[in-house]
Formats: sequence, structure tokens, C-alpha cells
Amino acid sequence: MSQTEISAQAALLDRLRHLGAPDDLAQAHPVDIAEALNLLEPRVAGRALASLPFGLAVRVLEQPELDRRPEIFQDRPAAEAGPLIRAMSPDQQADLFRELPPGERSRLLALLDPSARTTLNELLLYPRDTAGGMMTTDYARVPPDWTAGQALEHIRRTGPSRKPVYAIYVVGPDQRLVRVLSLRELVSAEPGTPITGVGEHRHLVAVKPTTDREEVARLLGKYNLLAVPVVDDDQRLVGTTTVDDVMDALAQEQTEDLHKLGGLGTLDQPYPTTALSTMIRKRAGWLCALFLGEMLTATAMQHFEAALSRALVLSLFIPLIMSSGGNSGSQATSLIIRALALHEVRVRDWWRVAARELPAGLVLGSILGAVGMLRITAWQLLGLFDYGAHWGLVAATIGAALVGVVAFGSLVGSMLPFALRRLGFDPASASAPFVATLVDVTGLIIYFGVAYLILHGTLL
Amino acid sequence: MSQTEISAQAALLDRLRHLGAPDDLAQAHPVDIAEALNLLEPRVAGRALASLPFGLAVRVLEQPELDRRPEIFQDRPAAEAGPLIRAMSPDQQADLFRELPPGERSRLLALLDPSARTTLNELLLYPRDTAGGMMTTDYARVPPDWTAGQALEHIRRTGPSRKPVYAIYVVGPDQRLVRVLSLRELVSAEPGTPITGVGEHRHLVAVKPTTDREEVARLLGKYNLLAVPVVDDDQRLVGTTTVDDVMDALAQEQTEDLHKLGGLGTLDQPYPTTALSTMIRKRAGWLCALFLGEMLTATAMQHFEAALSRALVLSLFIPLIMSSGGNSGSQATSLIIRALALHEVRVRDWWRVAARELPAGLVLGSILGAVGMLRITAWQLLGLFDYGAHWGLVAATIGAALVGVVAFGSLVGSMLPFALRRLGFDPASASAPFVATLVDVTGLIIYFGVAYLILHGTLL
Repeated sequence: MSQTEISAQAALLDRLRHLGAPDDLAQAHPVDIAEALNLLEPRVAGRALASLPFGLAVRVLEQPELDRRPEIFQDRPAAEAGPLIRAMSPDQQADLFRELPPGERSRLLALLDPSARTTLNELLLYPRDTAGGMMTTDYARVPPDWTAGQALEHIRRTGPSRKPVYAIYVVGPDQRLVRVLSLRELVSAEPGTPITGVGEHRHLVAVKPTTDREEVARLLGKYNLLAVPVVDDDQRLVGTTTVDDVMDALAQEQTEDLHKLGGLGTLDQPYPTTALSTMIRKRAGWLCALFLGEMLTATAMQHFEAALSRALVLSLFIPLIMSSGGNSGSQATSLIIRALALHEVRVRDWWRVAARELPAGLVLGSILGAVGMLRITAWQLLGLFDYGAHWGLVAATIGAALVGVVAFGSLVGSMLPFALRRLGFDPASASAPFVATLVDVTGLIIYFGVAYLILHGTLL
Repeated sequence: MSQTEISAQAALLDRLRHLGAPDDLAQAHPVDIAEALNLLEPRVAGRALASLPFGLAVRVLEQPELDRRPEIFQDRPAAEAGPLIRAMSPDQQADLFRELPPGERSRLLALLDPSARTTLNELLLYPRDTAGGMMTTDYARVPPDWTAGQALEHIRRTGPSRKPVYAIYVVGPDQRLVRVLSLRELVSAEPGTPITGVGEHRHLVAVKPTTDREEVARLLGKYNLLAVPVVDDDQRLVGTTTVDDVMDALAQEQTEDLHKLGGLGTLDQPYPTTALSTMIRKRAGWLCALFLGEMLTATAMQHFEAALSRALVLSLFIPLIMSSGGNSGSQATSLIIRALALHEVRVRDWWRVAARELPAGLVLGSILGAVGMLRITAWQLLGLFDYGAHWGLVAATIGAALVGVVAFGSLVGSMLPFALRRLGFDPASASAPFVATLVDVTGLIIYFGVAYLILHGTLL
């Protein structure tokens, strides 16, 4: 938050707490009020919300930034909650009902009229991360036999003027989407032009309700659209996703991707307001899973104990070799997760990627191997440490092991996102710690395998 | 890319290669043509572009998805390049000139008229990742003494209708930004209303040219805007950033953040078209830096060689303990990077975060410690492995070391993004491998320190 936002928030909070003259708030932006309400106790926030002018209260409720909406509604009587919920846009109603506990859900559902209830139940069918889950059924639609002037007059008369018109949909009597126009195109057209002749004729960009929200964001960004219509299998318009919701979804996806790459479940709330216990629970799960995986390294090490007792010098480089494998794996994983998300590579391109990552890994491993051998040679010759009579062979072991471990890390790291997608998971579930864990056990086996080959007959 | 996009692209490619009837292309979306051109040799792409209808060629050039624009212009004579560049929007001109090599830059700059050159040179002053670097000077502006009808008529008459009107700026004679309107608000107003009375009166959301593009994206998303005006220190309007450019910037930032967290420099090109040598160079830098850091673990291990020779059993758990520290550190880092980016925490909140991460780390460490001790006890009692006479003390060492290492990892991982921002770097430069490297050396010291305390007099 910037300094101006912070001081504006302090003033807002003060006014919301005292509820003296709520009309003062008319100039404040609803999202600023929502963020100020987040800092109040849910009960106080509920009362403050109820005392706002009705239209403003609805707009505050519609902000995705408003936390704890279920708690805010909990103490509101039906006579107060009903009009507020009925005035919300269908996609925001759906978001609210998704958060409600079952009992509260049916209490508030009863406050809606039957047609709104039907719409809501349809929207609730779709998961949050699909086009259906983020679409709204509240959009500008006109029949194909209208003129541009009629359509413009329709938009002028309907709906609150505060909401942008993201797109105008020309929909036939069979509900099929015929054409998409921008408000600019409509404004620029001669009033007498038939609506089907307005603007440029382009192929329609539309998605299905089950399309992933990341794909919606990609299409919207690629074609520079303000909205992407959602159609069913018969090209019938069922809703639309708008750029403001797509931006929110993108920010959520970005958070999830980063959290996953860091190796933890996504927090549903901002870091500072997440309870310590929740945060520990979210982190402990992955950390324990990784720990159990890493325990295999202890098992592997037990097998190599005899080798270590004969050549203790090998133990010195275990951390170095393991971390190099993990690091090269993390690099490859983060590259491929992003390339898959941006559709730069497809699942069936996995072998192309493998054919690039293997040589890349071998070169990278050779570079690190050379540096490692140089280090051992330098320390030995400068008298900084004595790696024993066979120090040359030890250096060769480290160098060769690094080539193998780094190449293996790059390969595993790059293939993991493909494997996850193939198995039906999000490729972004492949975290850096997950890759490191996968690579560590094999890294140890490669290391001791190489050591046995090179040092057999001398140290081993 | 979806299946329909792929087959459409194949057809497009075919038509671009043969250049038979370029009019066929009029219905294709410019971005699809740009992506098809990316698959052709730059020379062929240049010729194909030049043979497109002029308006379409300009729009193809304006797509950020079009790669290698400098190479495409290289062989084009001035008589051909001039009109194309002159017709591009100022922000896209700036993007093109940013990519050009110096010689080519002055050749093409000479093709612009003086006022366009001045505008361009001003835009080029700002780095790419600021509001100034992504803004355009091509926007709808009206004087404050007009009526709504006059403004609407102005928009109807000017500019190509294909571009959405993201916002209408009411600008005074002193260039100061007075008010921002949406096209919807203008359309809904009575034609006779003075422009300053149209729509709602809200506080103006504007940024400075030097504002970071992530901050622009945050404001645009928060206030559900289609454009954020850019003003100088005297509130004079200098340009505007629009939602389509912000979406592109967000996608780039997301790629950069993920790549950084994975521990590598950002590739400027898509993964499949990046040359193997470029990719290796980008990855080798970080990998070598991390490797040099990890070499400290070998130095640390050298100090503990005597301890290891007496208690070889300690070596078995080195990988396990090190990776646990790195994993908890990566979790904390990815949490805090994101919380800082979303303005959920500020730099001065570092101690609040530390006060949460330390107890969280101690609890997480205790959980892992308990699991680790259980594992040793179970293996010992089940006769799967013999950890020696002092196995109980060994188990206690592992447990206590895990508490220390995981708590330390969480603390270092969470503080690193703050430290980076304080030093003037992007907090997102803190990669998972970077954190692991930081934690590894200290993790070893903690491990052997704990071992010495617990095992002194028995094994050590």
C-alpha cells in the first residue's frame, strides 16, 4: 500500500468506526471502504456496512477485496441481508455463496427470487478456477435485427452507468452468439446501420464454461479483449468473463504458482491475517511429505556407510553435490512450468524438451565439475587442506559426479511438470523442494557409483 | 496453444508463405498473423508483412507477440518502413525502438516527423518496467468546457473504431488532469450535460511515469480500471497505461518471478526459440554463483572431519538435515515475496514477520524432529539398522538439530526478501536455491554444534 492509500485508509476507518455522517463516504471508492472494513471486527464491519447508503453498500460487498463476507452476513437480519444480496451481480453472489457455510447458505438462498436462485445454482456448479466459475450472467445483449442506434439507446437506458460495458453481444433467438461488438464500435457506427454490419467482422473468440481460468486470461491478453464470452457446446451464450475478474484471477494464480514452487499449499488469506496455526498446518503438510522423501537419503547413506568409513573424504562433498543437482533441477522446473502455462510447449513436446535439457545439463554439469576440480586442486597445492594421497582421483570423482548429477537434475526437473500434467495435476505443483528431494537420493547414488568406478582399488 | 489455434495457424502460415491473395487475411486476427510470422525466416516475414494490406500490417506490427521486429525492418527500404512506423501507436513505436540496434535506430528515427520524434524520445527515457515505459500518448482527451454530447461526437469522429476507448480524460488548458470518465458514463449522460458533471465524482487514481509496472497493475486491478493515467509532479497528464498493456506486463512479471524463484535469469524469448547456448549461459551464471556459495559447505565439512571420523553415523543424516532447512526457507521466501508484491506487508513490518516466522519455524522443526527421532528409534528397535550403542543420543541430536535448522531456515528465508528490497533489489530475486545455499552452511554448523553438545563425552 502506498503512503497516500495508508493515510486515506486511516481517515476512512475513523469514519466507519463512528458512523457519524456516512454520507461523507460517498466520494470514497468502494474498494477502499472494503479494505477499511477488513480491519474492523466482523460485527462492527457488518453494522458499518448496513449504515452505508444502499447503493454504496452493495458495491462494497461486490469487491473481491472484502474479506470475511460470511461473518459479516451472519448477524444481519433477513430484512437487511435480502435486498443487499439481491442487488449484487450474479458472479459476486456466486462468490459469496461459495464461501458460506451450508446452513447460512440455505438461509440466504431463500431470500432470492426463483429465477435468481436458478442462475446462482447454475453458476455454483462450476469450480472457481474455470470460466464458468468466474463468469457473470449480467451483460449487454441485443437481438440481431436491431440497428446500432437502437442498441446504443438500450445501453444508455439500462444498468448503472458506473460499470464499463466490456462488450456488446448480438444474440439470436436460439440464444446463439452471433457477433461481439465493443461500445466504441457501436458509438462510431451510423445510428441506422443494422447491428450485424457494425464494426469489423472477426472470428469469434469464446470459451466453454469448463475452460481453465488461466486459458481465459491467455486468450483475453492475446486478443486484447475486455471480455471473453462463455458459450455452451451449441454456441449458446451462457455468460461472460470480464477483464477485471480475469486480472483478479491472474493475481491469485500468480500467488498460487509462487507458493507451490516454494513448496507449500496456498494460503487463502493474506499473510498477515492468516492465523499462525493455519500457516503452520499449510506448511507442515508439504514439509513432512518432503521430509519423508528425504529420509530415503538416510537409507541410501546407510548403504554407503562402509564406503564412507574407508574414504571419509567423500563425505566432505555430499552437500555440494546434492545441492547442485537440486539447483539445476529447480531451474529446469521453473522454466518448463512457465513454458507450459504460456503454451510455448505442449505435453507432447516432452521429448523435444528432454533432447534440449540433457545436453544443457551435461554442459552445465561440466562447467560446475571443472570449477569443483579446480577448487580441490587449488586447496591441495596451496596446502589449505589435504585430500590424501589420491587427491587427483578424488577431484576426478567430484568432477564426474557433478556432470552426472547436474545432467540428471536438469532432466528430472524438466520432465516433472510434464509428468504432473499427464497424471492430471497442475504442472505448477512441481515445487523447487519437490524437485530437490527427487534428485537428492539419485544424486547420492550417482555420486557413490562414480566414486566406486574411479576410486575402486585405491581408496575404495 | 489450443487445437483450433494450431490448425488455424497452419492455414495462415501457408497463405503468408505463398502471398497469393493477401486479402484472404483480412478476417484473421492480427495477433494470429504475428504468431504465424514468428515461424518464418525474418526476411520472408518482412516480405509477407509488406504485402499485407497497409492497415493490417500496422496492426500486426503493433502486437507485442511479434518477435524479431528489428530483423523484420532491417531489409525494408525507408519508403516502406516509414509509413508503417509512422502509423504505429507511440507506445508500440517506443517498444520497437527499444529493441533496435543503435545504427538502425537512427535510420528509422529519421523517418518520423519532428513532433513524433520528440514524443518517442520522451517515452524512451523511461525504463520498460515503469508506467512511463509502458504508457501511450494516444488517448481520448477533451477540454473541461465541453458538453457530454460534444465529447461523444468527438470520439465518434476521431481515431479508428477498432481500439476500445479505455478512458476519456478531461484536461484543462494547463494540461492538468481534471476528471476521468468511462465511455459508458459518457454514453449514458444527457448530451447537454457539462462534461465536468458527467458520471460519479471520485478521487483520481493516477501514477507517476517512474511508478513500477507491478504497482500500476495493482492499482488497475484494485480499482477495476481499464486505464491508469500517468501524470507528472504538477498533475499534468503525460500519457496513459491501458489494461491490455498491463496484462502483458503482468504475464512478463509472472514469468520473471517464477524464473527467479527457480534460480535463473529471465529468458527474453519463449523457451523453444531460445538458442541452447543462450539458455546455458543464462542458467550457468546463477548455477555457478550458487555453486561457489555451496563450496563453503565443503569448507565447513573439512572442519568437522575429525568429528565425522569419530562418529560416522552423523554423516548419514547430513542430506536430510540440510534439505529440511532449505525447504522451510523456500516456503518462507515464496510467502514473503508474494506478500511484499501484494503490499500485504511492508518493509518496515520485517520484525512482525520475524516474530511470526521464528515460532512457526520452531513448531515446524519440532514436528520434523519428532518424525526423525521416531524413524531412528523404529529402525533401531526393528533391527533394520544399527546406529550404535548411543543410538538414543544420536536420535536426540537429529531431533534437536532439526528444530534449530528448520527455525533458522524459516527465519532466513523470510528475512531475505526484506533484505533484498532494503538493498535496492527486487525481493523476487530471492530464489529457492539461493535460500537453500544460505541455509546450508549454517545448517551444518548448527548440526555439528548440537552434536557436540549432546554427544560430547560419548561419541565425540
